[in-house]
Amino acid sequence: MDQLEKIINALIADKEYSSLKTMLKTMNEADIAEIFSKLPPENMLRLFRLLPKDLAADTFAFMDADEQELLIHSFSDSELKEVFDELYIDDAADVIEEMPANVVKRILANTDADTRKQINEILKYPEDSAGSIMTVEYISLRPDMTINEAIKRIRRVISKAETIYTCYVTDNNRRLLGYLSVKDLLLAGENETVKDIMETTPICVHTSDDEEDVAKKMAKYNFVTMPVVDDEMRLVGIVTFDDAISVLQDETTEDFEKMAAIAPGDDSYFKTSDFLHAKRRIVWLLILMLSGIITGTIISGYESALSTVPVIASFIPMLMGTGGNCGSQSSTLIIRGMAVDEIRPRDFFKVIWTELRVSLLTSAALAVINGLRIVIMYHDIRLAAVVSLAIVGTVVMAQLIGCSLPIAAKKLKLDPAVMAAPLITTIVDAGSVLVYFTIAARFFHL
Amino acid sequence: MDQLEKIINALIADKEYSSLKTMLKTMNEADIAEIFSKLPPENMLRLFRLLPKDLAADTFAFMDADEQELLIHSFSDSELKEVFDELYIDDAADVIEEMPANVVKRILANTDADTRKQINEILKYPEDSAGSIMTVEYISLRPDMTINEAIKRIRRVISKAETIYTCYVTDNNRRLLGYLSVKDLLLAGENETVKDIMETTPICVHTSDDEEDVAKKMAKYNFVTMPVVDDEMRLVGIVTFDDAISVLQDETTEDFEKMAAIAPGDDSYFKTSDFLHAKRRIVWLLILMLSGIITGTIISGYESALSTVPVIASFIPMLMGTGGNCGSQSSTLIIRGMAVDEIRPRDFFKVIWTELRVSLLTSAALAVINGLRIVIMYHDIRLAAVVSLAIVGTVVMAQLIGCSLPIAAKKLKLDPAVMAAPLITTIVDAGSVLVYFTIAARFFHL
Repeated sequence: MDQLEKIINALIADKEYSSLKTMLKTMNEADIAEIFSKLPPENMLRLFRLLPKDLAADTFAFMDADEQELLIHSFSDSELKEVFDELYIDDAADVIEEMPANVVKRILANTDADTRKQINEILKYPEDSAGSIMTVEYISLRPDMTINEAIKRIRRVISKAETIYTCYVTDNNRRLLGYLSVKDLLLAGENETVKDIMETTPICVHTSDDEEDVAKKMAKYNFVTMPVVDDEMRLVGIVTFDDAISVLQDETTEDFEKMAAIAPGDDSYFKTSDFLHAKRRIVWLLILMLSGIITGTIISGYESALSTVPVIASFIPMLMGTGGNCGSQSSTLIIRGMAVDEIRPRDFFKVIWTELRVSLLTSAALAVINGLRIVIMYHDIRLAAVVSLAIVGTVVMAQLIGCSLPIAAKKLKLDPAVMAAPLITTIVDAGSVLVYFTIAARFFHL
Repeated sequence: MDQLEKIINALIADKEYSSLKTMLKTMNEADIAEIFSKLPPENMLRLFRLLPKDLAADTFAFMDADEQELLIHSFSDSELKEVFDELYIDDAADVIEEMPANVVKRILANTDADTRKQINEILKYPEDSAGSIMTVEYISLRPDMTINEAIKRIRRVISKAETIYTCYVTDNNRRLLGYLSVKDLLLAGENETVKDIMETTPICVHTSDDEEDVAKKMAKYNFVTMPVVDDEMRLVGIVTFDDAISVLQDETTEDFEKMAAIAPGDDSYFKTSDFLHAKRRIVWLLILMLSGIITGTIISGYESALSTVPVIASFIPMLMGTGGNCGSQSSTLIIRGMAVDEIRPRDFFKVIWTELRVSLLTSAALAVINGLRIVIMYHDIRLAAVVSLAIVGTVVMAQLIGCSLPIAAKKLKLDPAVMAAPLITTIVDAGSVLVYFTIAARFFHL
């Protein structure tokens, strides 16, 4: 790709537009969009005009919203119409969702009534719903069509469909009856009817379902497309696998960010302003800072103990760190387990029981290793006993808190990802200090 | 699903096998596999035998390795042959990869020579490579075929192909020339040839490419299938989108685990033994514990300072916590940015510069809020200045370390995910204590 970029820049510098035109025609739209995103705006527009009509629209669909907006601003009305006529309806709706009101107005003014109606159909659904990512360009068949009639119908409407891999079978009221793949059609005998060969398992999603659930359902069933129905079980659209994959990727990014105490944002790293970067991070930092202050206050409360046996202070960072790490290990396993539907809220006690056993194993190993180290370095068995016991107490507490909070969040309909490392660590920090000082006070008679 | 499970258990208890048979036939294979996984083994086997041949194989492909092994053990040789004859080659290879040697031997002894050859073809590629997840059941066309000839060929070989969505065009030496979709075929005029309508952009992967790169490439280009070629650019197989999605999901899980200091494992949460759970977590805990000890030693070194101005001890947890959180925010953004190919190692200085600006903004806000709090609570401007300055130093350091280590790891061909919260936090912990005490010593003349 780097090589290609260099060649293209050299050709632009030499004004070799006809070679550029030939070259772009051989390239894939995703690659063209990637290279365009690195060009200065005037060159991007110049090259865009060199693309054949269908490749131009495909490339446009792969570009970022701000580049799309830039292009739209420099398009003539007829250019705008040309691009939007070629776009699939779901891609057109995606573009429109990201544009400011005046641009949306201009786009809709330059599309024909039929397309406009279809776009508006998608735009009316709430953001992140199945309805908002579906396309209305699917192929529907009737159950009593013969295989030949079905193939004829597909040939007739094919240019208007985004994908023909799966065709859906509906009744006269557009209610979803079943589906079949083009493979099934080509395998079937000519005298069979659609009804004979269709799959009737009614797996579908509702327009208002969350897009993440839709994507996960498609991954579960290995579906390339998923039918979307309304309240009356009428087929209103399909979600295609490319949208499902990008939903899965966006949701993963959001989970990673939430789990690192970052408020989710819409833009990518380099497209986020400094101010927004700071804003997305500072809310949680402030909340977590508060709890750091609480831990500090607890430590201050034991000031006299610290001055009597000063050596105990030096184990605080190790205990707090270990507690935090154990807590985030447990919470990460549970959050991810819930994200891939392996762990459900009703598994609560099973999880608690597992983590309890594992925490005893882990903490025993850590306690023994630490105890030996302390005996060897400090020749103080009492100190070794205090620290080792504190490790067991801290690790068990950390793992139990780490596994329960995400499940509790899920039960309360909150996003479990919020209950990740940062929050768990802070809660566990205070707890580990309390456990440690309680044990130390008992053993050293403080 | 819960409801279905209850019904099925009730029907099993009543020995209503004929109703069960009818009921199972209407269900999707993914759902059947999910319900089977919750049944006691003897019931699972009993219900499996009720499934029609093709649904049985589809269900088998959706089951977990240990359930598959259980079934294989109770299959007769002819049952085993029936299931493996129906499986797609890539699914069969997936099953075999998870089985112990004696089971593999029995499976291969019960498949016909042709299937065995195809399975062995896939098994010879290293784990996690494109070759190991591909299927050899694709449709290839010749460039000079007419559209009618192409459709005839597709009809002839269709039952042996896993997917017909994309057909690949190869020359006499099986070298990949291009591809076309069934949609292109149905849209084309009867007199055109395959060559006229095929896409010639040579996007493909090599048998030895990493499966994660293959999956990301498919997501980038929105491909339902990706052609796999050997050293001579000969087409040897295709990767289908369902395998790509499961690779993406597994890699995400692995990233989450690595970022939480857990050694990746193959099994899901509930299928991992307590001992393995503990083993996966303890290695990093020990490493991180060591660095906690270093931080503790640093604090001990300032024992006299702490006894002179005891109040400074109470801000240590807040400073360490804030540093750790800032560091993990930065590292998470960078690790995820690299995972989705937005951030590349050559962006190093751009990232450093961004994080520096953001860290100044973030730390200024945190420092002001904390400074005010300390002035109000302690009426001590010098203390406020020390803590505020330490916050600025800690946050800037934490964000710079947090963003550079993942990029450095990538440059050294290590997995950036290892440079996540746990490691960053521990490094930053020691640094923040040093920064804090250096500033405090200067201001309080310690």
